[in-house]
Parts: sequence; C-alpha cells; structure tokens
Amino acid sequence: MPYIPVSDGLPGIAGLLAYKPATGVRVADLMHELLRGNSSLTPAEREVIGAYVSRRNECEFCARSHGATIPHLDAGAELREAALAGPDAEGISPKLRALLTVAGAVAEGGQRVTDDHVEAARAVGATDEELHDTVLIAAAFCMVNRYVDGLGAVTPTEDAAYDQMGVRLARDGYRRAL
Amino acid sequence: MPYIPVSDGLPGIAGLLAYKPATGVRVADLMHELLRGNSSLTPAEREVIGAYVSRRNECEFCARSHGATIPHLDAGAELREAALAGPDAEGISPKLRALLTVAGAVAEGGQRVTDDHVEAARAVGATDEELHDTVLIAAAFCMVNRYVDGLGAVTPTEDAAYDQMGVRLARDGYRRAL
Repeated sequence: MPYIPVSDGLPGIAGLLAYKPATGVRVADLMHELLRGNSSLTPAEREVIGAYVSRRNECEFCARSHGATIPHLDAGAELREAALAGPDAEGISPKLRALLTVAGAVAEGGQRVTDDHVEAARAVGATDEELHDTVLIAAAFCMVNRYVDGLGAVTPTEDAAYDQMGVRLARDGYRRAL
Repeated sequence: MPYIPVSDGLPGIAGLLAYKPATGVRVADLMHELLRGNSSLTPAEREVIGAYVSRRNECEFCARSHGATIPHLDAGAELREAALAGPDAEGISPKLRALLTVAGAVAEGGQRVTDDHVEAARAVGATDEELHDTVLIAAAFCMVNRYVDGLGAVTPTEDAAYDQMGVRLARDGYRRAL
C-alpha cells in the first residue's frame, strides 16, 4: 500500500508521477532525456546503468522494470547480465565495465567517486560526456529509487508485468509514462 | 578540479548544468518546480529539507548554498538551525520536525521510510501532498548531491560566495541557474 493515494492500476513510479503532474512531467522529461536523449552511450547501456544502480539501492520496481527494458532494445545477453552483476558481468566492454564501477560508487555517495575510477574509465576510452552522463544517470536513479520506495509505491511481483513495461519503455521511452 | 571541463567561474552544479544544457535545463526545471512551484510547504521549509539532506549526504556545496538561501526567504533563526540540525532543531513546528525525520530516512534509502514515520507526520498535520513533496525533494537532493560530488564540482570555501548565491536563488529560483 502506497503512503499516498495513487490511481488504481498504476504501479511503481507511474502512480506517483500521476499523483502530482506538475512535478511528474518534469521527472519523466528528465528521465527521458537521460535515457533516450543525445548521448554516445546507447539506450541499452544507459538502461543497464539505471537497472544496476536500482539493484544496488534494492529498489525492486526500478531494477526489474529497467532490467526488462534491456532485451527489447536489441541488447545482447551480456547487457542483461550487467543489469544484475554490474562491472562483474562477463563479456561487456572494458568501457562499460569501468563506467558501471563509477555508477556503483555514485550509488554509495558522490564522494565515493575517486580520481582512480575516473582515470581507469578514461584509459579504456570513456569520454568526458560519457563520464558526465554516467554520473548523472546513476544519481537520477538514486532519486527515483528513493521516490518509489520512500512512498511505498505498488511493486508487482509477476515477471509478465515487468515485461509489458519493458516493451512499452523500449518503444515509447519515459515522456509517455504519465 | 572537476572531472570534466566546466566553464571558468561556474561553481558547483552551475558548471555541470552548463556543460550539457539538454540535461541541465531539465534538472534546473525540476528543482525549480520542487522548491518554488505549488506546494503547501513554504519555499523556506523546502530549502531546509534540501539543505539538511545535503548535509547528511556530506555535499558541502549544496548544503551551504541552500542553507544560505534560507535567510533570504524571510525565514526565522529556527529554520536556519534546522538546515543544520534537522529534526533536532529547537523551535520548529512539530510538522516540519516529522517531515525532516522522513527526509533523513529518504537520504539513507527509500526503504528506510517506515509506517511509523508516516503516521507520526500525519498525527501532527502533514498532508498526503506534503509527504509526497518531502520524499521527492529529499530524493532529488540525493540526485544533485551525487551529481555535484561525483563529478568533483568546484566548491568555493568563502561564506561570501554562498551568500551571493543565496540572494540570487531566493530572488530568481533555479530556472535561471543556467
């Protein structure tokens, strides 16, 4: 049971965004830009960062819904694994591995990102913009994870519910989440 | 030294927002709506929530800049103290005290918010919308704190720099932060 009244049938963040559209449209617009806007990281790589941070933050709704989006974005099995295992996943690029290490540090706290993390990412080809995007995406998931769980949002249990969300989020992104 | 190149003289989040305007305008727009948009919490109370969460997250730039905004919003000394001490501040309303307890839980993690926190806040008059706004503001500061420190943003040391920011943020809000 959420702590605030949300419309029937709106699980997770969708019910919260609809509760107060003035803030909801802005959260959705930001997440859409971060995950589908201009970036040299692919949408699937960005979803991996978000799903992995959500898992570290133990936000089941976000981890499962973003994890379920990855297979619908033409991503290989290694990215699906990375959504769960982060930098320990087999078969991912050295750059994504280094960026997931940065994202994991962000989840713990901004000061946990060190010069060594950043140098290691640069050494395997990460650009300034990719570092920027990784830190901001990881930070934004620290927001939405806390929004969802801090208000006790509805968290479905069945895989099918998340797969449906994944299909829709891969096709339409986040602006239409409202 | 920030991890990415930011324009000269743009401290803290301002340099990061300007680095990538497509995401920057959306972060600024969301923060403006949260801190200055429609809410039954006053702008000063919302700044207190943000400054207190920033202090818990040890984000010096955000804690000091939002803390410095409070005196320029017609706030009493008790709100200035609450930006530092949170629910332990003397002289704040029981409602703000209970909401700061919720905000502190959000800073630790979404699941740290309990039924007891929510019931305690309701018992002293907090509405659904005030609970919603408190959780989302606290969560959003968990984002911006990590964005600022995760990219090593410029953090001025002198109080005068923060007081200047406080004057501007109290007058103009956040949309013009870019």
